[in-house]
Amino acid sequence: MDGLMQPRPLTLAHVLERAERLYAHKQVVTAGVERVTYADVAGQSRRLATALDSLGVPAGARVATFATNTRRHLELYLAVPITKRVLHSINIRLSAEHLEYIVNHAEDDVVFVDRALLPRIWPSAERMPKVRHWVVLPDDSDEPIPADPRVLHYDDLVAAADPFAGSFEDSFTLADENLASGLCYTSGTTGPPKGVVYSHRSTILHCLGTLAAGFIGLSESDVVMPIVPMFHANAWGLPYGAMMTGASLVLPGPSSDPTHLLRLMETERVTVAGAVPTVWTSLVPQLSFHDLGATRFLLGGGSVIAPALSETYRVALGVPITHSWGMTEISPVGTIGGTRTQHRDATGAEQTAVRAAQGQPLPLVNLRIADVETGQELPRDGTAIGELQVAGPWVAGGYFQVDSAESFTDDGWLRTGDLATIDADGYIRLVDRMKDLIKSGGEWISSVELESALTSHPDVVEVAVIARPDPKWGERPVAYVVLRDGSAATGDELLEHITPSVAKWWLPDEVVFRTALPKTGTGKLSKSALRDSA
Amino acid sequence: MDGLMQPRPLTLAHVLERAERLYAHKQVVTAGVERVTYADVAGQSRRLATALDSLGVPAGARVATFATNTRRHLELYLAVPITKRVLHSINIRLSAEHLEYIVNHAEDDVVFVDRALLPRIWPSAERMPKVRHWVVLPDDSDEPIPADPRVLHYDDLVAAADPFAGSFEDSFTLADENLASGLCYTSGTTGPPKGVVYSHRSTILHCLGTLAAGFIGLSESDVVMPIVPMFHANAWGLPYGAMMTGASLVLPGPSSDPTHLLRLMETERVTVAGAVPTVWTSLVPQLSFHDLGATRFLLGGGSVIAPALSETYRVALGVPITHSWGMTEISPVGTIGGTRTQHRDATGAEQTAVRAAQGQPLPLVNLRIADVETGQELPRDGTAIGELQVAGPWVAGGYFQVDSAESFTDDGWLRTGDLATIDADGYIRLVDRMKDLIKSGGEWISSVELESALTSHPDVVEVAVIARPDPKWGERPVAYVVLRDGSAATGDELLEHITPSVAKWWLPDEVVFRTALPKTGTGKLSKSALRDSA
Repeated sequence: MDGLMQPRPLTLAHVLERAERLYAHKQVVTAGVERVTYADVAGQSRRLATALDSLGVPAGARVATFATNTRRHLELYLAVPITKRVLHSINIRLSAEHLEYIVNHAEDDVVFVDRALLPRIWPSAERMPKVRHWVVLPDDSDEPIPADPRVLHYDDLVAAADPFAGSFEDSFTLADENLASGLCYTSGTTGPPKGVVYSHRSTILHCLGTLAAGFIGLSESDVVMPIVPMFHANAWGLPYGAMMTGASLVLPGPSSDPTHLLRLMETERVTVAGAVPTVWTSLVPQLSFHDLGATRFLLGGGSVIAPALSETYRVALGVPITHSWGMTEISPVGTIGGTRTQHRDATGAEQTAVRAAQGQPLPLVNLRIADVETGQELPRDGTAIGELQVAGPWVAGGYFQVDSAESFTDDGWLRTGDLATIDADGYIRLVDRMKDLIKSGGEWISSVELESALTSHPDVVEVAVIARPDPKWGERPVAYVVLRDGSAATGDELLEHITPSVAKWWLPDEVVFRTALPKTGTGKLSKSALRDSA
Repeated sequence: MDGLMQPRPLTLAHVLERAERLYAHKQVVTAGVERVTYADVAGQSRRLATALDSLGVPAGARVATFATNTRRHLELYLAVPITKRVLHSINIRLSAEHLEYIVNHAEDDVVFVDRALLPRIWPSAERMPKVRHWVVLPDDSDEPIPADPRVLHYDDLVAAADPFAGSFEDSFTLADENLASGLCYTSGTTGPPKGVVYSHRSTILHCLGTLAAGFIGLSESDVVMPIVPMFHANAWGLPYGAMMTGASLVLPGPSSDPTHLLRLMETERVTVAGAVPTVWTSLVPQLSFHDLGATRFLLGGGSVIAPALSETYRVALGVPITHSWGMTEISPVGTIGGTRTQHRDATGAEQTAVRAAQGQPLPLVNLRIADVETGQELPRDGTAIGELQVAGPWVAGGYFQVDSAESFTDDGWLRTGDLATIDADGYIRLVDRMKDLIKSGGEWISSVELESALTSHPDVVEVAVIARPDPKWGERPVAYVVLRDGSAATGDELLEHITPSVAKWWLPDEVVFRTALPKTGTGKLSKSALRDSA
């Protein structure tokens, strides 16, 4: 016996048309550039929709963006999927080699590119033969625009198009909810990047996940600032979530300058912001110079957040950095950390320890840990360490046009490559990436725990611990550290500092000081680059 | 191009297994009877699942409940749908005629009935020949249990069954999300009751809707008390929503005694409660004798809430009654009222006026108004009045085994029978039920507005305005009023009280005083019964 509910598909068209109907007056601020409303964004998206038709972009074709967090990028987030094309947001920090690989692998039909970013991609254009058009998104740069018939100007293109006057939502049927809406390639620390293909259904369900109270809980009263780039895993779903519920959006543009970001948070009275730990670290020195009293939720993810960093924010603003765990493959949010009612009577230290965990899965997300050797599921006892595996309607079940078997279990769960524990309350605690774990004398050392301990030293700005081959022990840990300007801390001093918190044989064999550490395209510390340079 | 996400179905099995994994320790309190955990409820549900097998209940068969809000009813809410049977919750206040009609129409295979309610249904048993088993849910009553081989005892049945040890979630495929999970019959003010068939998909999406921040926003920190009966439209989705997010549940059992309800809210530190306006009205006289400081959200729906009633709560508790509009056909929540950021600078009176509206649709719900005569969509200008129509994935597209064409538009939207305006922010304001509107001298008079105006008189406890046939004007309004004990207010005094707020020709021709007004099975005022008795 089937239900007799209306066969309404879950599509991004609903997000646009809902914003038009309920939240037309709410604001979208692009830093330093302009202040528009959702009505403006929707109107532009309706023009862009017909502009894509006029360019002859077929249904299902990939439309790429090579762009920072701006209002025009948001219009592409909407117009591309709601006309049944696929939004391929490209990481702007990729190497030329990877860039060319993914544009060709995705068979991008059109690429929309920030004017300031032209120098990073135009030189590769001749090696991307399937791209028919390059559309330049204006910004405050004066990079020369190539005199080439394939190159178009975004504002001209959109202004010349008539707005689509009908209902995008009505153009979808139930089966269409499984159409691809977006495509993101993972960083690809081993092998070439792999494409994750989101559907309208998965994106809408993830969007509802970002609204769930007690998790991120986006609502109409929020002012949401995705510092995390829109070219990185849908900016954690924050733009779509904000628009679905009518929160204002603040898009910081290309600059990640701490003063710029903090001023924007202050002047726009931002309530929710999301960024990777390196960004949160970069803001700390100037935190006290800004009134961030409107803040209610700071989201951190992408790599493990040292408890000391989160505590710094909690003490300064009354708001910790809430840990989220996710992956491009998970749309990307899988878990949200923080305390629950069972921790109400816990001591401050106990609560800090809970906040250091990556937290509980969002509704609809299932997690388990499995023995790395046997694949057997391990107990949820907070002690057993296994590979974290994840299932859910917004979790990838395969990669785009590559053999994906090794990334998934026989029953279809995603193998994350993260080692974790799960406790009886379903909290996960990441131990390490499987490939970053250090095996010394047959026992495991968590690089993540060593990094968290070292970060708690007041002079440490950034740290990465990696394995060094060792003839006796197999591998031994080495710490790479960036100190704050003017610090005279020594390696011995740092090791002494962490001695109370880690096992003696975990202490790194060496502390190497650097002025900066290499980052991945998404701004995370790159241990593979560090290994290469070590 | 299709997405490459995991084909994970949306099913109620996830709600049970999520509660087991994350919220096993959270409490379910049944008033006066017992205090258990979600682990207990889940364990019992796992036994009940195999008990249903042992009774030979086929997949897809209807399993009926005739029960109040208790822990055992919650177990049925879970075990029936997650084993792919259909939960048919029967309104315990139906007439014998309707009761027999729907049990036979639904072809219920088994009926679970509160012991105290046996006298209301057992006399009809011989006219319900397809029911193979009657299972008695123990309560504090000592109603005689019929000595009949079909009659079983719930606790014996469940205790004798082995708990299902596997994953219910794994037993569902993507296509299964459209399986029926529940069946509710509408009150049927005209013609026989009509069955609404919920699917797992619609129920899970509605469940996510109840978690959305800024709407009901259920979260783990809530203590949720559905005063609205579990036999009425899924108790507004509160039990499933609470369990999905780990909120504690307080189930008030069979009594609707005001002291009982208020004591329970006070002692259990209830944060969210939902009830129809007549219940909220009944609590007012004793509100000041209880500490309801934990309250954060009071949900009202089922019929229009007089602003005066909501204001009474806002003044007393700092929490108004938030208006929700919905229907059994909408799972049932369609809108949530209350103010938004655009009302922050409004005066108190303006905010009260906003709160009197039924509010904005939940995510995924679409609303429009249409001309009653032509069916043409009307503007969203806050002025045009039309029939409210609704579309969405948790909105019915048909009724169970009856011709439903007249209830739906050609493009599949539900015709609600409510007259409403929609303003530019998407707020709906109900004007009246189409059948309750009074047509006088060719112009419409809203019975709802007259009732709201009369309710603002301090001596008025309940009021209903209905049409009386009139030779000159066609129809004229007549008010039926219940005064508080000891009041000496006269009809003229009441009419004088409302004269400033309504047009002069709207004033009722007569005010009739009654000691009580007739109610429907769901506790709403029954205007059809009043018309019959008038």
